[in-house]
Amino acid sequence: MALIVQKYGGTSVGSVERIRAVAQQILLARQQGHELVIVLSAMGDSTDGLMKLALEIDPHPDSRELDMLVSTGEQISISLLTMALRQKGCKAVSLTGWQAGIVTDEEHQDAQVREIHTASIHQWLARGYVVVVAGYQGVTDSGQITTLGRGGSDTSAVALAARLHADLCEIHTDVDGVYTADPRLVPEAKKHTQIPYEQMLELAEMGACVLHPRSVREARKFQVPLVVRSSFQRGEGTRVGGELQCGISSAFWGIAHQEKMAVLSIKGERREEACSHLAKHFDTVGVEAEAVVSVSDCMQYSLSAHELENATAILQNDGKRLGIEGWECEQDMTKVTIVPADPFTEKDMTGKLAELPFPVRWLKPVKRRISCVMPSAMSKAVMQTIHRSLAMNLNAGRSKDFLL
Amino acid sequence: MALIVQKYGGTSVGSVERIRAVAQQILLARQQGHELVIVLSAMGDSTDGLMKLALEIDPHPDSRELDMLVSTGEQISISLLTMALRQKGCKAVSLTGWQAGIVTDEEHQDAQVREIHTASIHQWLARGYVVVVAGYQGVTDSGQITTLGRGGSDTSAVALAARLHADLCEIHTDVDGVYTADPRLVPEAKKHTQIPYEQMLELAEMGACVLHPRSVREARKFQVPLVVRSSFQRGEGTRVGGELQCGISSAFWGIAHQEKMAVLSIKGERREEACSHLAKHFDTVGVEAEAVVSVSDCMQYSLSAHELENATAILQNDGKRLGIEGWECEQDMTKVTIVPADPFTEKDMTGKLAELPFPVRWLKPVKRRISCVMPSAMSKAVMQTIHRSLAMNLNAGRSKDFLL
Repeated sequence: MALIVQKYGGTSVGSVERIRAVAQQILLARQQGHELVIVLSAMGDSTDGLMKLALEIDPHPDSRELDMLVSTGEQISISLLTMALRQKGCKAVSLTGWQAGIVTDEEHQDAQVREIHTASIHQWLARGYVVVVAGYQGVTDSGQITTLGRGGSDTSAVALAARLHADLCEIHTDVDGVYTADPRLVPEAKKHTQIPYEQMLELAEMGACVLHPRSVREARKFQVPLVVRSSFQRGEGTRVGGELQCGISSAFWGIAHQEKMAVLSIKGERREEACSHLAKHFDTVGVEAEAVVSVSDCMQYSLSAHELENATAILQNDGKRLGIEGWECEQDMTKVTIVPADPFTEKDMTGKLAELPFPVRWLKPVKRRISCVMPSAMSKAVMQTIHRSLAMNLNAGRSKDFLL
Repeated sequence: MALIVQKYGGTSVGSVERIRAVAQQILLARQQGHELVIVLSAMGDSTDGLMKLALEIDPHPDSRELDMLVSTGEQISISLLTMALRQKGCKAVSLTGWQAGIVTDEEHQDAQVREIHTASIHQWLARGYVVVVAGYQGVTDSGQITTLGRGGSDTSAVALAARLHADLCEIHTDVDGVYTADPRLVPEAKKHTQIPYEQMLELAEMGACVLHPRSVREARKFQVPLVVRSSFQRGEGTRVGGELQCGISSAFWGIAHQEKMAVLSIKGERREEACSHLAKHFDTVGVEAEAVVSVSDCMQYSLSAHELENATAILQNDGKRLGIEGWECEQDMTKVTIVPADPFTEKDMTGKLAELPFPVRWLKPVKRRISCVMPSAMSKAVMQTIHRSLAMNLNAGRSKDFLL
């Protein structure tokens, strides 16, 4: 008998039928004798519906009140799933974030779990109940309801698994594991049996939305055994954690991509000097801009399109003083990131990949990844080509060679 | 400066536009310098929507889980109203039942308020905030979410007003006060300026849905000054409380009516003896049956149609043994109740009203009211005739005479 934390996402509980199906899956695990803590997201897109109501009232609603509002979404799904479990004869109880003892900091809309008072959950488990906990939410020391921000239910599940010393944390989602690339874009993508925390984190941070980076960081910190698997079908899924050899490809762990990116090109005689000042300004206001590998007559940055406004405001205010003579924006860009099997040197990696027959712009490599940026229209073809090249190298037994 | 508790019902916060209008009303009271605690119901028929979801999953859902589910309705309305207040520059904060310290017994779906820990509300008030509290809900000593049952938000408002020692409790609803009858059925109905707790309670118990009986009882118990007024227009409303003379009519305080009633006729030689046993059986299972004033060959009871099933089950099981030879049911009946201005004697009241030109059946009079039951199709005409008769008696200066 193991203690298992299972998390089901919004799509998995998006309708009464799906809630019933999830209840059935839980019963199977129950019949194997496991103690179960279930963590749920809100049903389907119900959170978006609540947000829309809020924005109708105030385009900039108060974050405490927003947490009060959107935390109802999970409260609805946990009660319905618990009813479905009870209806099938299974002892079950639902707990909100505060009832489950999930204490966070005061950062409404993006709170971090500080501690979990697990007494209540343990009491229900001891009485033989399946405990269904509202994900994505917690409570401050002073009793204010908070939410954990994007991907918050994954984080809730991992945090609970860590504090309950669970034997396993299963993330049930709408895909059946972690792939080498998004299979909708790269049909040849392969599912991993296992992937280490570090590389999962790189993929998650660079756009693989199967897991939220914060939950992976939390899992790494507490060494929580994590499995990503499908809500809709049984199967192995992907284990996340441990120090592993790359099973599928010794050349790379995966290719992630981020859409709605932009490229900002900055011109000026003293542009290099200007840009080192600019980097500090960007940092101050939280604009994450990655530098593109040097091109002839300008400095280029890749950044998320929604940060463009902040970035250009800085250029308008301080550009002239910094010696910047002009700038250009390109939008509708996609950033593609490769997470290789081993640490690699900047020179080797860029050299090899630069031979790809696409006009992509490479970003300055980082320890465990290398990224390039391109117009979104060509990103699918680029990802397929990179994936095929790396897999070919693998097949030819030259995989390590390719990258190093 | 007064401390005022204002309650707004579901229709009053049924849309974003109405929430904005309620915020505007609150601002007006705020500008007069009052401290305000606002109690809200869920938006429009959102609670029904949640109930429907629950019943899809389980026709007999667990009452604890049902409370978890439906209590989200008020959590949504309080956060949205608070956003609307803040958007207009008013300091405001929303509190759920548990955050507001509303402690109830363990009776899920029909909990009673035991005590209110008002410290949190007082703290927010002291900081100059309008405090927006979720009506209809509370929390048990062990931290389970409960709901107060039908009319629960009125009860929340009165309970808060009592424990906060508020100067006034205003119930804002979709009518502009307490009338002598439902104005949709009796256009001549008059609005009361004031009505005592006792008579308001009689009317509420006998079908006047402007206030829930439990909230009136709570108001009487704690002597809370209550006002019923419209959410949509300014106006005097009706004060509930105190010992008063009947202002509009010295003959009667009002006429209430209950639809979906039934009449059960019981036959048998020993029917009187049988029925005294039957009354005990009805009492045991909670069937509220009122006896009709004796007719020749059978005993008759008026009861709510939804209790018929329970009542006939008793007759089927025990009828023969009790000497009951048969029974008949009439459905689609309406019970009409008159609450007179003064205590009256059974004989006088029945004697006078029995002269009305309708085939109604009178029920055995109770201290502060007299009721009759009839097919629903004729109830409107009966109510209009009774109202006119009593008002005529009033006009002729014979009002007291008529009833005594």
